[in-house]
Amino acid sequence: MVANKMDKKFTHKIHVRWSDCDPAKIAFTGRIPYFALEAIDAWWEHVIGDDWYRLNLDKNIGTPFVHITVDFRRPVTPRHILCCQVQLVKLGDSSVRFSVHGTQDDQLCFEGEFVEVFVAAQEHIKIGIPQEFKERVESQLVIENE
Amino acid sequence: MVANKMDKKFTHKIHVRWSDCDPAKIAFTGRIPYFALEAIDAWWEHVIGDDWYRLNLDKNIGTPFVHITVDFRRPVTPRHILCCQVQLVKLGDSSVRFSVHGTQDDQLCFEGEFVEVFVAAQEHIKIGIPQEFKERVESQLVIENE
Amino acid sequence: MVANKMDKKFTHKIHVRWSDCDPAKIAFTGRIPYFALEAIDAWWEHVIGDDWYRLNLDKNIGTPFVHITVDFRRPVTPRHILCCQVQLVKLGDSSVRFSVHGTQDDQLCFEGEFVEVFVAAQEHIKIGIPQEFKERVESQLVIENE
Amino acid sequence: MVANKMDKKFTHKIHVRWSDCDPAKIAFTGRIPYFALEAIDAWWEHVIGDDWYRLNLDKNIGTPFVHITVDFRRPVTPRHILCCQVQLVKLGDSSVRFSVHGTQDDQLCFEGEFVEVFVAAQEHIKIGIPQEFKERVESQLVIENE
Repeated sequence: MVANKMDKKFTHKIHVRWSDCDPAKIAFTGRIPYFALEAIDAWWEHVIGDDWYRLNLDKNIGTPFVHITVDFRRPVTPRHILCCQVQLVKLGDSSVRFSVHGTQDDQLCFEGEFVEVFVAAQEHIKIGIPQEFKERVESQLVIENE
Repeated sequence: MVANKMDKKFTHKIHVRWSDCDPAKIAFTGRIPYFALEAIDAWWEHVIGDDWYRLNLDKNIGTPFVHITVDFRRPVTPRHILCCQVQLVKLGDSSVRFSVHGTQDDQLCFEGEFVEVFVAAQEHIKIGIPQEFKERVESQLVIENE
Repeated sequence: MVANKMDKKFTHKIHVRWSDCDPAKIAFTGRIPYFALEAIDAWWEHVIGDDWYRLNLDKNIGTPFVHITVDFRRPVTPRHILCCQVQLVKLGDSSVRFSVHGTQDDQLCFEGEFVEVFVAAQEHIKIGIPQEFKERVESQLVIENE
Repeated sequence: MVANKMDKKFTHKIHVRWSDCDPAKIAFTGRIPYFALEAIDAWWEHVIGDDWYRLNLDKNIGTPFVHITVDFRRPVTPRHILCCQVQLVKLGDSSVRFSVHGTQDDQLCFEGEFVEVFVAAQEHIKIGIPQEFKERVESQLVIENE
């Protein structure tokens, strides 16, 4: 059984704050990748039950990023909740690619892609996607022509 | 007279610290864009004499980012100084594209591209590259086949 | 009618993350004041309907801090939700003093006090506590011998 | 031979940036403890040759904070270099107390005190001040009536 596309859209909500904003009165550019990364951390917790902290410390699974790209469409401010929609768009042998769309008040603020690889955390050696959650992760893959 | 390519390589040094690192004992992914952005802020101060703070508050010139992309090659740690080399690689009518290369101990740690546009800061309306420093900025443009 | 002491205990919950932690695998010292400040920002939004961002930009009311003190009792980690209990413990003519207690899994992690003053935001001149929400704020004051 | 008081004043300079500032156009309150902590990290590197990262990872010496207090005197902005003067003001059996004074353009912006304790980093057990650098640290103690 394959989950349908809607099921695979995970949304993480962030309350943007005064401390996130710069003198231009909008969230500082460097905060946007933080928001997207937080949403991906929440995706892991949602899909496999462990966030990066537990994966790393309890299971010796590290997931360093090798690539990020973000296009900024509209400023992010504290006036509305920031909804970060995370989707798994590609699954390699030892890597995962996410897209993250950030919206406020139903307007797209940024969109980006983020690629993580799996490593043995202590040894820092590349590993395949761990068997224990491979299936759960695969089930989240969004097939474009689905 | 055109400056040669070497003159156009501006390097900003960052002392990476404990506070930048996560439990994997390396600088957190989200810190890398911060480092690159800091280097670009320093580039402006070096080239035109004003950093983003002064540009924005004193001259009403805002320079929001519309795009960033970063490829991570090696972990960044506090063990070596992080040298961020900034180059202006493209100049549009109202935008500038920078490349930033981050090295530690002569090893490439990350490389990325960052695109800013010019706006009237208070009005948040797109403007052309300001006349008062247009020439100085143009002189920094790296021509690939130069 | 006076609210009883329990009503005056506002709790703000924070999901501590990988990005908050340092190589000692606990939230970095400098993050703790951020957490407490976030809880105070949430207190304002809860009590008067405006957070610092709206107070400052929409009502020209600034609330800079003049004092903070924090005692750290136990490490903060991503393993449990961080509950930040905020109480208004003193109300001066133009200042407010909060206590913030941070607990995880019912264990006290930190406690601190934070003092803000009221200023006209643009002019940066001290002002009294604004009439429009003075009563609501006063109603939150915790009387120790109450 | 005892170093005189002037020799014991270590100053760490910080270039405050756009990214440190909030919509009030000054460094966000939560950044000030970060600046002071960075200055203390630099003090360790200056006095014993190791920063927190090396102390922790290479020598298994952790130095968690148990107390911080900061009084804010004037706003911190990117307009001037922030000079953080660090002094060791108290030395216990297994703790150190620092004072940090932050000035910009010769005006006091903040002053605070920060207390660290020594622990075996992996075991998280309190230890005495390590013999290998005890003498060097003691030599930095500022005697008020000196």
